[in-house]
Amino acid sequence: MRVAGLISGTSADGIDVAVVDIDDRIQVVAATTVPYPDGVRAAILSVSGAASISRLNFLLGELFAEALQHAGVPLETIDLIGSHGQTIFHEGEPVDFLGRRVASTLQIGEPAVIAARTGIETIADFRPADIAQGGKGAPLVPFLDYQLFCHPEIARVALNIGGIANITVIPAGAKPKDVVAFDTGPGNMVIDALAPPFDRDGAAARGGSVNDALLAELLADPYYQRQPPKSCGREQFGAEFVRATGIDVATATELTARTIALAIGRYPGTGEVIASGGGVHNVYLMERLQALLKPRLTTSAEFGIDPDAKEAILFALLAFETHQRRAANLPSATGACKPAILGKISPAT
Amino acid sequence: MRVAGLISGTSADGIDVAVVDIDDRIQVVAATTVPYPDGVRAAILSVSGAASISRLNFLLGELFAEALQHAGVPLETIDLIGSHGQTIFHEGEPVDFLGRRVASTLQIGEPAVIAARTGIETIADFRPADIAQGGKGAPLVPFLDYQLFCHPEIARVALNIGGIANITVIPAGAKPKDVVAFDTGPGNMVIDALAPPFDRDGAAARGGSVNDALLAELLADPYYQRQPPKSCGREQFGAEFVRATGIDVATATELTARTIALAIGRYPGTGEVIASGGGVHNVYLMERLQALLKPRLTTSAEFGIDPDAKEAILFALLAFETHQRRAANLPSATGACKPAILGKISPAT
Repeated sequence: MRVAGLISGTSADGIDVAVVDIDDRIQVVAATTVPYPDGVRAAILSVSGAASISRLNFLLGELFAEALQHAGVPLETIDLIGSHGQTIFHEGEPVDFLGRRVASTLQIGEPAVIAARTGIETIADFRPADIAQGGKGAPLVPFLDYQLFCHPEIARVALNIGGIANITVIPAGAKPKDVVAFDTGPGNMVIDALAPPFDRDGAAARGGSVNDALLAELLADPYYQRQPPKSCGREQFGAEFVRATGIDVATATELTARTIALAIGRYPGTGEVIASGGGVHNVYLMERLQALLKPRLTTSAEFGIDPDAKEAILFALLAFETHQRRAANLPSATGACKPAILGKISPAT
Repeated sequence: MRVAGLISGTSADGIDVAVVDIDDRIQVVAATTVPYPDGVRAAILSVSGAASISRLNFLLGELFAEALQHAGVPLETIDLIGSHGQTIFHEGEPVDFLGRRVASTLQIGEPAVIAARTGIETIADFRPADIAQGGKGAPLVPFLDYQLFCHPEIARVALNIGGIANITVIPAGAKPKDVVAFDTGPGNMVIDALAPPFDRDGAAARGGSVNDALLAELLADPYYQRQPPKSCGREQFGAEFVRATGIDVATATELTARTIALAIGRYPGTGEVIASGGGVHNVYLMERLQALLKPRLTTSAEFGIDPDAKEAILFALLAFETHQRRAANLPSATGACKPAILGKISPAT
């Protein structure tokens, strides 16, 4: 077997490369050192925050392994784990960085720790392989939506109402390449920021009244008219948004419902909208949505999928696909140039 | 197949867990959410430095993939890549962190990018699995030293003179568990800090004279008498050490030679010392070493191993072992409670 080895040492001078043939013995075919380009060594040596991120990565690995043991399923019956980890940075669009264009994403929750504590092979870090193929590393959920909800005769939209709301549009009898997915705008995020503790059932919004002038102004944001693929970030609808707009909970709820309905309205053939995510518990939001939507609105529970567990189910499925060495990104959703086998496999010992 | 999925979303409230059975369809066996312990959510949301580390991780992936193409070996002949990446943090001994004891390590150089650019399966991140088993995540090189140099009748010491110097002690006919490895003290580090550009052949040291009083004082450091396993950090022998001691290059070179000889002297049966690392090019250092050592001193070149390429060769070998699903840490060297299959596998698409 011919194997290449790569390392840059702690002095960060450059990359040592060796190519060896391994059978009974190790025979060196080639060896060289390639210095780092200007600026890279300095960037490495001056990196900050590495200690906290490194420690958090290992601590979260322990916590993720412990969390699994709370599911009440004997570990010895589980064959495989798929762990998304905790995103601490995501930049799906490339930016200028040390003379290159770089898109990147960073999830932590050390899978080697999860594999060691559980004794189960653990696949993690599902987003980088899509970014490496030019994708945005997100959304990944359309792969699950397609598997669960694709119907030969009914066009469906899977709607996830998390902090941000996003939809997966699945035409009747769709092939994977026909699937479209994008963020519609705010999900629970603005509502959460305004009504702590979370206006779970929407009672506060129901009791309030919508500021129509502000709503009209917010709906004029060109984002809502842009063609997909498109995505919005947490920073767009966070505390600063609340402060700058002076929005109230009724208007925030209406903004969420209207922008979701607007997005789904672009797909007039849609027969069913299947919701999941924390937002499905907001009764008033769901009522407003059904009022604004032509298609029937239901939740993933109708399909045996706990609306709060859909993302965790997704990463179980993605691990399964990687275990079978099958690609599991949808390039039509992420913008990748090709399908990619996602994730990294940490073997159990 | 029964697969567990784990995720904490961007709101970092806690860990969603789902366990599903996957065959023709996806059946949910269990689902739950486990909140993060106090303090963890705050630590995640306040993490700093993640943007630079995330971007550097992806940029280094590109640079590592490009470096391999400088080795002059056609990529289509290479079956597998083992990449150590670039260490940006290493803390093999546990510290208090958010109410737990945590040891950790952090290497960057995204292997999904290396696999995508080369089309070759890439195994990376070799240290975490050893730390997950209670080891220090280092040294890993004894596994290679053992494979290369174990001899039925000759006791050997593999000596690596990098920034820090370390030895692997391989008794005649040793089993893996008989192998001892530890840092002896400074390697090129103090010399490098004093004589830029690097006193490569030791001419400056040869022309200088040793400050015997300072040398005696430095040799009195209890580190040199401590029982292995033990390791020293870059910070111990960096610019601050040079400033605090006022050491000159002749004394630094003698300190390096004497501390290496002292460590090897603890193993009186040693028949051969096989050196590698940048320090082997320091002719004067090698002369001093041979003068201080009873066993014959040679370099790994005698065994067909380029002394500058040994670490890169190591990671090729470790990838090969992981590919075969064989453990490749030596618990006697790292302190791990058991052997572990090292690294994470990024499949090529």
